[in-house]
Amino acid sequence: MHKIVQCVPNFSEGRDLDKIERIIHPFRGKNGVKLLDYSRDEDHNRVVVTVVGEPEPLKEAILEAMGMAIEAIDMRNHTGQHPRMGAVDVVPFIPIKNVSMTEAIQLSKEVAQEAAKRYNLPIFLYEKAATHPERENLAKIRKGEFEGMAEKIGQPEWKPDFGPDKIHETAGVTAVGARMPLVAFNVNLDTTNFEVANQIARNVRFLGGGLRYCKAIGIDLKERGMMQVSMNMTDYTKTALYRAFELIKIEAKRYGVNVVGSEIIGLLPMEALVDTAVYYLGVENFSMEQVLETRIME
Amino acid sequence: MHKIVQCVPNFSEGRDLDKIERIIHPFRGKNGVKLLDYSRDEDHNRVVVTVVGEPEPLKEAILEAMGMAIEAIDMRNHTGQHPRMGAVDVVPFIPIKNVSMTEAIQLSKEVAQEAAKRYNLPIFLYEKAATHPERENLAKIRKGEFEGMAEKIGQPEWKPDFGPDKIHETAGVTAVGARMPLVAFNVNLDTTNFEVANQIARNVRFLGGGLRYCKAIGIDLKERGMMQVSMNMTDYTKTALYRAFELIKIEAKRYGVNVVGSEIIGLLPMEALVDTAVYYLGVENFSMEQVLETRIME
Repeated sequence: MHKIVQCVPNFSEGRDLDKIERIIHPFRGKNGVKLLDYSRDEDHNRVVVTVVGEPEPLKEAILEAMGMAIEAIDMRNHTGQHPRMGAVDVVPFIPIKNVSMTEAIQLSKEVAQEAAKRYNLPIFLYEKAATHPERENLAKIRKGEFEGMAEKIGQPEWKPDFGPDKIHETAGVTAVGARMPLVAFNVNLDTTNFEVANQIARNVRFLGGGLRYCKAIGIDLKERGMMQVSMNMTDYTKTALYRAFELIKIEAKRYGVNVVGSEIIGLLPMEALVDTAVYYLGVENFSMEQVLETRIME
Repeated sequence: MHKIVQCVPNFSEGRDLDKIERIIHPFRGKNGVKLLDYSRDEDHNRVVVTVVGEPEPLKEAILEAMGMAIEAIDMRNHTGQHPRMGAVDVVPFIPIKNVSMTEAIQLSKEVAQEAAKRYNLPIFLYEKAATHPERENLAKIRKGEFEGMAEKIGQPEWKPDFGPDKIHETAGVTAVGARMPLVAFNVNLDTTNFEVANQIARNVRFLGGGLRYCKAIGIDLKERGMMQVSMNMTDYTKTALYRAFELIKIEAKRYGVNVVGSEIIGLLPMEALVDTAVYYLGVENFSMEQVLETRIME
């Protein structure tokens, strides 16, 4: 695969294994598409799929999967703890390799337009693909959930970007968009004082005057007797992992607290770690083309 | 590609582009084989090819390329600055992904046996594939070069591992073996004193009581007005890059000298840098399976 896009669609079915298999089937055994993971949650009644592929085959596979989900899921009977507004709740596209954000946005719009047409489905574009600033935030779009959508999308300011102005009777509404890869990066502190962790989190995150592409909260790791700064790095190409790590060390100093380790939850692109190694080793003029795996995947 | 082996064959032709193209042709357009690079040197009169692949397709491709080189090159007319003993001078196999050293050694022996049979070629196994300790070092095998090989392999202690006890009239002798990936890692120092760099090199390298899988020499970077510790990391899975880097910093302290940067020459596997990032960030319980590219290549 020369160009690689990741897609992490969330479907509103976490209990019926037959239905889940039907929904993810279009991602299996296709050239140019690779199913990496799917993780279902019975309480959420939701499955989160991670798939990568070349733009064109990925587009066709996701459209097929959306069709299967719309056929299989009836939102009028759906219960679950996670907020949701449609059978295909949300479809984010994420540029991974040799793909720009502009191309990922374009891909998300093509999928949205074609899905709206094929399935008569109202679709909102969100995050980087959003057509209005107030549609960037998925939570704002989803507010009211499936049960409130019929009324919400009748309002002029909530007219969908594609598809009809009324909800799909059984499949509700879908959000399709583009975003950077998220890296879940947590840093552990040798303190039992929650306020210290929380204050450090406030200082390193964007909202508190910290790093632009960093969300952070303090968390009490009760079982380990320590505190954690739990972060979502929302664009590691601009706010590197080492920058957040070193800044937390600096902030922790003022409390006489030390960083004692960290964890990375889930998947991340190799570039996020290669960039960090290159920083600490002070490597001059390094190119990702020097990484064997970059060349193998070309 | 699930299992990936790298092969870096050296062929004794660096001037005739038609011949070079014929030799590397078997690595092009084959399923399960990928030509990453080839670099010819007219003074050396030699081409170094970098190819990766699944073991079986790679084996067949390298055997074909060896046949093309044997057909194209007449060592009786070969001149060049680099030591050489055959048209196919040396064929190392390097385990990269989901392949053990034992499997790489096995692959090298299969290729050696089949090439000896197919081309009536005497072959020495070297490095990790060597059958005697005195055959581990390629330089010892190659000593005497093409011109001296006819006599050398007549001696009982230099009986080839495969093939006849006499040289191939036009193609000489070949060494086939297995080794770990080499990482060429150089660290720059803010001193103009060559002896300081050389002493640090002696202290960090295996020969001087330093790190087991580290070769090092001091080098004068005259144009930049600084010195360099130039290293070959011969097994980054056992002697990590960060360990050599930090040890150089520690040794440099005794001379009041600082590390001011580094460089990585050529290709290296992503694991060498991921491992370094994981060390500096103190990431607990990290798995290479969390790297998106690992999963994509599976």
